[in-house]
Amino acid sequence: MFQETIKSIRPVNPVFAEKARKRLDTLTKPQGSLGRLEEFAERLVAITEKTMPVLDKKVIFTFAGDHGVAEAGVSAYPSEVTRQMAFNFLNGGAGINVLARHAGAEVVVVDIGVNRDLAGAVTREHMVKGNFVSKKIIFGTKNMRHGPAMSRDEAVRCIQTGIDLAYQYAGQGYKLFATGEMGIGNTTPSSAIAAVLTGRPVSEVTGKGTGIADETLKIKIRVIEDAIRVNNPDPSDPIDVLSKIGGAEIGGIAGLIMGAAARGLPVVVDGFISTAGALIAYCLEPKTKDYMFSAHNSVEIGHKAMLDKIGVQPILDLHLRLGEGTGAALAMLMIEAGLKIYREMATFGEAAVSGKSG
Amino acid sequence: MFQETIKSIRPVNPVFAEKARKRLDTLTKPQGSLGRLEEFAERLVAITEKTMPVLDKKVIFTFAGDHGVAEAGVSAYPSEVTRQMAFNFLNGGAGINVLARHAGAEVVVVDIGVNRDLAGAVTREHMVKGNFVSKKIIFGTKNMRHGPAMSRDEAVRCIQTGIDLAYQYAGQGYKLFATGEMGIGNTTPSSAIAAVLTGRPVSEVTGKGTGIADETLKIKIRVIEDAIRVNNPDPSDPIDVLSKIGGAEIGGIAGLIMGAAARGLPVVVDGFISTAGALIAYCLEPKTKDYMFSAHNSVEIGHKAMLDKIGVQPILDLHLRLGEGTGAALAMLMIEAGLKIYREMATFGEAAVSGKSG
Repeated sequence: MFQETIKSIRPVNPVFAEKARKRLDTLTKPQGSLGRLEEFAERLVAITEKTMPVLDKKVIFTFAGDHGVAEAGVSAYPSEVTRQMAFNFLNGGAGINVLARHAGAEVVVVDIGVNRDLAGAVTREHMVKGNFVSKKIIFGTKNMRHGPAMSRDEAVRCIQTGIDLAYQYAGQGYKLFATGEMGIGNTTPSSAIAAVLTGRPVSEVTGKGTGIADETLKIKIRVIEDAIRVNNPDPSDPIDVLSKIGGAEIGGIAGLIMGAAARGLPVVVDGFISTAGALIAYCLEPKTKDYMFSAHNSVEIGHKAMLDKIGVQPILDLHLRLGEGTGAALAMLMIEAGLKIYREMATFGEAAVSGKSG
Repeated sequence: MFQETIKSIRPVNPVFAEKARKRLDTLTKPQGSLGRLEEFAERLVAITEKTMPVLDKKVIFTFAGDHGVAEAGVSAYPSEVTRQMAFNFLNGGAGINVLARHAGAEVVVVDIGVNRDLAGAVTREHMVKGNFVSKKIIFGTKNMRHGPAMSRDEAVRCIQTGIDLAYQYAGQGYKLFATGEMGIGNTTPSSAIAAVLTGRPVSEVTGKGTGIADETLKIKIRVIEDAIRVNNPDPSDPIDVLSKIGGAEIGGIAGLIMGAAARGLPVVVDGFISTAGALIAYCLEPKTKDYMFSAHNSVEIGHKAMLDKIGVQPILDLHLRLGEGTGAALAMLMIEAGLKIYREMATFGEAAVSGKSG
């Protein structure tokens, strides 16, 4: 189904990276002294194949989905919080709303797998403003401890949903995407994906999520180990992994990243759960990595294993563990800073500043 | 002279920190899940003693000064670049201008020790707009390899200049200050200060600055060792250290931080050179630390030793080594994000979101 998308993902263009590097080295600063800001600019030029890219329209997709495995007591919060938080997003009161405003980005809440009807309670205004998108593929996953979280077909449709959104917003002129999510229980499938796709033991990639007790963490690890044993997902088949031990929002994120890569747009990957989606995308097509910016280093202990597997360096380390896309919103500010440096700084010639001695 | 300022610096108020903590814990997120953003909000409330602080007026002071020790060949750039870059700042083309605009902050260039006349070449417009301040205490330091960089009186006047600026801008309603600098050769006195005030060997706190060769680094280390031997600065007397092996802009930064602390205002400390100024301020009055935000972890190897001595954790790590205040501008965006989270997020009650189970 999405083979066409995968085929259309090209490696980024080193000729453009080189052009960017040359300009960066003429700006009034010691070469390389703006560190990662320069890296961001170079990558943006290479990704967009534009010598003077702009990032005027930015959007964060917050995919919402529920998890049958929440019934196993793996989360500190009840499952209904997914739906309640979706409304908090729509009313502008959540962390992601505050930080997206700060970053000058829009938030689009995507119901891809919430376990109750949301569309009925969403107002016409929400729909018209386009900050709510109803793309429900499932009413929550099934409890993966006892069998597959969803069918293979459902997993594929989740990914396709993300791809479709990427194409739609690319068509509307958005220039920078970011991923985020909301789903009570979703660090559990994310840790499961991390374990299977990095080959690490479950206990090394499973953390306390929203803040569970030590005793609950032991249960969570056992639940994930059970889920992997019962489902036996094939690490060489990312769709098999996503369907058996994943979640709808994780599939949506994977798809969004693939769609962004196919359209030649940069995408900021938020924290732990978003990186599980990014790892699915990376395993489907490693070239997606060229389009990813890893927003931050999450407190969740399994995050680093996935980042290392993909081979990306997070931008921020602010001890975040909220999700929603909050870290991505903050990272957008740093990426944009890199682009502004590239676009707006004077060259040594323009400013009549002497270069290096000797 | 500035004993009154030191006496007026109070420890921040833990009652206000506690108030902030209580509100943060009612917001719609797992407690503590926004990590350092929550710490920033808590500290801002404690520093300002306001339950709903605002950061609407932000200013970055870029202190410019020259260094006699530059004649010893310790920098990759000729000394005249200090003056040339000051004009680049005034024309809006430098890294600090771009990043300050991005952060919504003003830049004030302070000539505190440039080795040539600047005021004559600054236009009336620059003066009227207030983005250039002429406070020249010295025409560059003397070469510290052969004797004191400046007199004790000059060092005190540099500090007083920073204090006066802090008081003036506090009086004009500025709410957040940041430090920055420009001065060819100024990583050399900064490393010297780091060595003397942290007790580490010169070779462990001396790096490549704007990008010198390995051979030049050896010379730089030898020059600093000579300067310390020749001047024998007293580590228990920060003014002695500043005058013998410091610089005018480093003194100005120390003063700005002391003035901010005395007026109860937060101050963002940029990178390596700014932290040398912060360390002088800290050694004069350790309570200044309560008002400091360390912007970023510089590439310069001596930076961490000074941060550890003060006991602050940098906010960003983007491999920067430019100075000017560039890292401080970026960190302002993160500090402000923390305040916005605190001010703008909905509580569990307001959003009708269920709390933690069990």
